[in-house]
Amino acid sequence: MTISIIKIGGNVIDHPEQLEAFLTLFAEFPGKKVLIHGGGVLASRLGESMGIVPQMKDGRRVTDKETLQVVTMVYAGLINKQLVARLQGLDQNAIGFTGADGNLIRSEKRPVKDIDYGHVGDVKEVNSHLLELLLSEGIVPVVCAITHDKKGQLLNTNADTIASEIATSLSKKHSVNLYYCFDRPGVLLDITNDASLVPLINEEVFEELKREKVIHSGMIPKLDNAFAALYKGVSRVWLGLPENLLLAEKGKNAGTSIEKRRYDLY
Amino acid sequence: MTISIIKIGGNVIDHPEQLEAFLTLFAEFPGKKVLIHGGGVLASRLGESMGIVPQMKDGRRVTDKETLQVVTMVYAGLINKQLVARLQGLDQNAIGFTGADGNLIRSEKRPVKDIDYGHVGDVKEVNSHLLELLLSEGIVPVVCAITHDKKGQLLNTNADTIASEIATSLSKKHSVNLYYCFDRPGVLLDITNDASLVPLINEEVFEELKREKVIHSGMIPKLDNAFAALYKGVSRVWLGLPENLLLAEKGKNAGTSIEKRRYDLY
Repeated sequence: MTISIIKIGGNVIDHPEQLEAFLTLFAEFPGKKVLIHGGGVLASRLGESMGIVPQMKDGRRVTDKETLQVVTMVYAGLINKQLVARLQGLDQNAIGFTGADGNLIRSEKRPVKDIDYGHVGDVKEVNSHLLELLLSEGIVPVVCAITHDKKGQLLNTNADTIASEIATSLSKKHSVNLYYCFDRPGVLLDITNDASLVPLINEEVFEELKREKVIHSGMIPKLDNAFAALYKGVSRVWLGLPENLLLAEKGKNAGTSIEKRRYDLY
Repeated sequence: MTISIIKIGGNVIDHPEQLEAFLTLFAEFPGKKVLIHGGGVLASRLGESMGIVPQMKDGRRVTDKETLQVVTMVYAGLINKQLVARLQGLDQNAIGFTGADGNLIRSEKRPVKDIDYGHVGDVKEVNSHLLELLLSEGIVPVVCAITHDKKGQLLNTNADTIASEIATSLSKKHSVNLYYCFDRPGVLLDITNDASLVPLINEEVFEELKREKVIHSGMIPKLDNAFAALYKGVSRVWLGLPENLLLAEKGKNAGTSIEKRRYDLY
């Protein structure tokens, strides 16, 4: 079967009207599908209202105990359950997941080298058997950016990485497409100009864009994730605006499609 | 198959050492099982830290929009996911649920008569097919006290009622035992004296205790729920301390067992 892994960013979640529009599109999206979400802005705001200041070390966000609690409340509680309830209202049989539920995603605390990132997990194993069981029952898994170490500890994990790891894991037996929805029309040559959209990127183009320092630094980890997924078996990776998701599914020219190198294709 | 529905109260959840002890017992509890939890004290405390004051109307708690958000964060997020992660650490294949997930529990907003309770739901339907599927896969569902109306809205629902409704629904096809763990050794004749424990109650005894006003008012809805479950097909209802759960399972004299009237037994 073909499975679509669709990741939405915090910007969609933070705007109720955009979210409703997205969920209507997502409900129309055909075939087996998995929704992945984070929810950064809401978590930061809630944390601040409780007097929890985001911890930074050398410019990197660190997940201390209190931050993990806030993230668990907002991602797995508020956002995940509102998404599930809305999808149920649209006749999508959604079930919400963290990586702990059904041991869906086992991770390990990131080893301490220069920085101790705190309760941050690097993905080690995805329970693709459980995902297959759910998808075959017509269930739509809605997965938030929290994993666990299978020893009782929840861990914070990047949502883009979770999307990529789930896609990769399912691609061993199935044809998998990976869609990253975010707040830009795709990869832009000039971040202030939507018309500078790059419709198609392969690894050669990516290396060139990086060399010329044209590409926005925030895009680089997203594209690294995308290429990693492609090289591990995912059929197609797409980046773009949530409202273009159905066009992308139909293969229309909306957003940025990511391909392997040409010589890998033949 | 025999299925055990086990409900824990906020007092266990609020004390980390008690919670660890309970989860160890729960992991040893044999057979198919479902865990139900609420989490009142933590939710109130978090709400207060965010400036949300519990709303009361005529002495009844009302769930306004902000309270529902707090409850969703604490019950479905923080508590549910910590329980799931701890159980996974004890090799229990737990998956956390609200009533919205997989449309597990559909409810309707309580009709406005004298009081508008706000976002409070009365249970209408339990998806016992989903529970049967999960239990047959060796999964341990962990259900929190939130339901939905299947139209996109989450609703706050009493955890004792959820336990009773799930037990009743599964009892149509299976033998079901219902265990209420709380902060008393069982039903007490004198609330200040643990030695006044009533080991066995049938409906005649219950009516007599109510007439004589011996029974603590907080116990009455719990016992009403228990009898409702028995009359709808649940085999056994038990009330007692969480640490006595395994004794209760073995039929030992610990806590209060609740039976139908004698003439219904023959």
